[in-house]
Amino acid sequence: MSNPSLLILPGDGIGPEVMAEVRKVIDWYGAKRDLAFDVSEDLVGGAAYDAHGTPLADETMAKAQEVDAVLLGAVGGPKYDVLDFSVKPERGLLRLRKEMDLYANLRPAQCFDALADFSSLKTDVVAGLDIMIVRELTSGIYFGEPRGIIEEGNERVGINTQRYTESEIDRVARSAFELAMRRDKKLCSMEKANVMESGVLWREVVTEVAKDYPEVELSHMYADAGAMQLTRWPKQFDVIVTDNLFGDLLSDLAAMLTGSLGMLPSASLGAPMSNGRPKALYEPVHGSAPDIAGQGKANPIACILSFAMALRYSFDQGDEATRLEQAVEKVLADGLRTADLLGEEGKAPVSTSEMGDAIVAAL
Amino acid sequence: MSNPSLLILPGDGIGPEVMAEVRKVIDWYGAKRDLAFDVSEDLVGGAAYDAHGTPLADETMAKAQEVDAVLLGAVGGPKYDVLDFSVKPERGLLRLRKEMDLYANLRPAQCFDALADFSSLKTDVVAGLDIMIVRELTSGIYFGEPRGIIEEGNERVGINTQRYTESEIDRVARSAFELAMRRDKKLCSMEKANVMESGVLWREVVTEVAKDYPEVELSHMYADAGAMQLTRWPKQFDVIVTDNLFGDLLSDLAAMLTGSLGMLPSASLGAPMSNGRPKALYEPVHGSAPDIAGQGKANPIACILSFAMALRYSFDQGDEATRLEQAVEKVLADGLRTADLLGEEGKAPVSTSEMGDAIVAAL
Ligand SMILES: CC(C)[C@H](C(=O)O)[C@@H](O)C(=O)O
Ligand SMILES: CC(C)[C@H](C(=O)O)[C@@H](O)C(=O)O
Repeated sequence: MSNPSLLILPGDGIGPEVMAEVRKVIDWYGAKRDLAFDVSEDLVGGAAYDAHGTPLADETMAKAQEVDAVLLGAVGGPKYDVLDFSVKPERGLLRLRKEMDLYANLRPAQCFDALADFSSLKTDVVAGLDIMIVRELTSGIYFGEPRGIIEEGNERVGINTQRYTESEIDRVARSAFELAMRRDKKLCSMEKANVMESGVLWREVVTEVAKDYPEVELSHMYADAGAMQLTRWPKQFDVIVTDNLFGDLLSDLAAMLTGSLGMLPSASLGAPMSNGRPKALYEPVHGSAPDIAGQGKANPIACILSFAMALRYSFDQGDEATRLEQAVEKVLADGLRTADLLGEEGKAPVSTSEMGDAIVAAL
Repeated sequence: MSNPSLLILPGDGIGPEVMAEVRKVIDWYGAKRDLAFDVSEDLVGGAAYDAHGTPLADETMAKAQEVDAVLLGAVGGPKYDVLDFSVKPERGLLRLRKEMDLYANLRPAQCFDALADFSSLKTDVVAGLDIMIVRELTSGIYFGEPRGIIEEGNERVGINTQRYTESEIDRVARSAFELAMRRDKKLCSMEKANVMESGVLWREVVTEVAKDYPEVELSHMYADAGAMQLTRWPKQFDVIVTDNLFGDLLSDLAAMLTGSLGMLPSASLGAPMSNGRPKALYEPVHGSAPDIAGQGKANPIACILSFAMALRYSFDQGDEATRLEQAVEKVLADGLRTADLLGEEGKAPVSTSEMGDAIVAAL
């Protein structure tokens, strides 16, 4: 049997340097755990634009459709701000999500014990926090038509459309209920059903799907109240399911609560392929951080933990995923910190590659 | 000359009881500061639905158009969850905003010294916080057409439309720049220009308006990064301007940061009327809190401070507004707390009306 295949898209900014550390981890699994991957690498985002004039070449898109999983670093940077909307680095990422139909974006917001003090929130509010946000990723206002900037009368009008079909809501709700079943069996769905009809439909469909998961305790919250409650007492939540745009804000907010932003991975999953594995893309929650790119300061942990999610969700290697997560925790408990994890105390940070090496050693 | 006119719409839940305390304050200004108002009162939200089958009767709408300012309590409650979308309590509030054309929603997020400990954020992160969020309030996805739930193929589709014209963005941006001029001269505009064309137009127009305010330092941030930065270090901001939907989430998030949710007022302002005063509606940021309604537990301060905003923005009585704000601070410094402001310490809370009386006494 051939090895499972991985497509690596380092992207822009700190993407390449954090991805280099992931490769060390991948190599370790091949050498020590008999878990070898066929790894290929390609361009996305600004890097692809620089090479091909498009943030995602068709050949790269085709490769992404064929592999067992895609690992992405980060896209974007000020250099590309002047580009037309249609070729901005983000469009490469959005094309991957849309064409691979990766409808369920899993964003764990977990507070690492060793880092609880690092949060802007009080320690007791975030210590031990472990919630999972499931964000719809292929529809809603990100992709709805009509869209664009049109002329009307003697002025311009900017238009975007939020559109959700019942089946789009149904499938992401099922992903969220499935996750809730494997966790604390609590699901909170967030929308603005008091203001938006798409939110009314969202609430109806989620309520309908709940009938197939009688063990899961379902609640509904308006997204603005959700933002508040996440800030006030995030531990009240287990799994949260929400749409693409609300999910963008709320999952970033939840990530920031933990104080562990450079630590948080994500998985974007679609329907099962013929081999039973879901279409999948894994990426850190953090951005491309152009201000520190190329300086060996970036924290590779989020990207390494994204590979752990790949082990769990694509390759059915939950135990190996846990091994990797524990290696990360051990290194943190030992006091290793990249620059982003240091307060004012003046401790010396380790570099990106020192952090990667330490994690491999801890494996 | 006749007295300035105020229309009071207590609404649902705790609305009536907090508004009763505001009336004590209004009466005090009439008796002691020679600032008498012609006050009338009417129904909005669920209360209006119960009486008239609509969350805002046409006569009430007409009155709101005539008075110098509207003071609103809160709308909504679980009793009305079953109502059709078109007659939900919220529609009454949205109709007021839309027909009065109240395009600039001013939401101060201020941390009261006496309450800094009450925030879920670390004290140094929020102590002294004083930011102003300007939310566009009459357009965007709240009001854009087409909207609704339609049949397509054999399923339903929920649709909402985000629409912003250049002039809509221009006018709210000007309100924000004007406020920034009277504060620390820093404005941050938030959208998702990396994903939404309406955000691209938003950024362009705000950048254009900035030319008329060369003293104001303008920055742009994606709304998801904005949610993060508000959580991480809110004091980096002075004034924030954003659209209706992002403003809904971000202003609630900012309010929750302060730990002073029951304390925060808001003003919604439109164009000047023939008497030079802007169309205006003032309301607390908190909701109708049906769980504690009618028990004398509600905190009337947000509603009282909304009246202070009315003094400042509608009646050119900045000094009297400051007097009222200082009375509130004094009462808090004296240790008076309604139930929402007490932690676990087991101190005895004061009632809604005791809080109102204390503030009048401090005036
Ligand atoms: C880069 C950007 C297009 C993207 C988004 O808005 O979805 C990012 O913020 C994210 O959350 O993955
Ligand atoms: C009550 C509701 C319609 C309203 C909104 O979404 O605008 C509220 O959340 C607010 O922020 O004033």
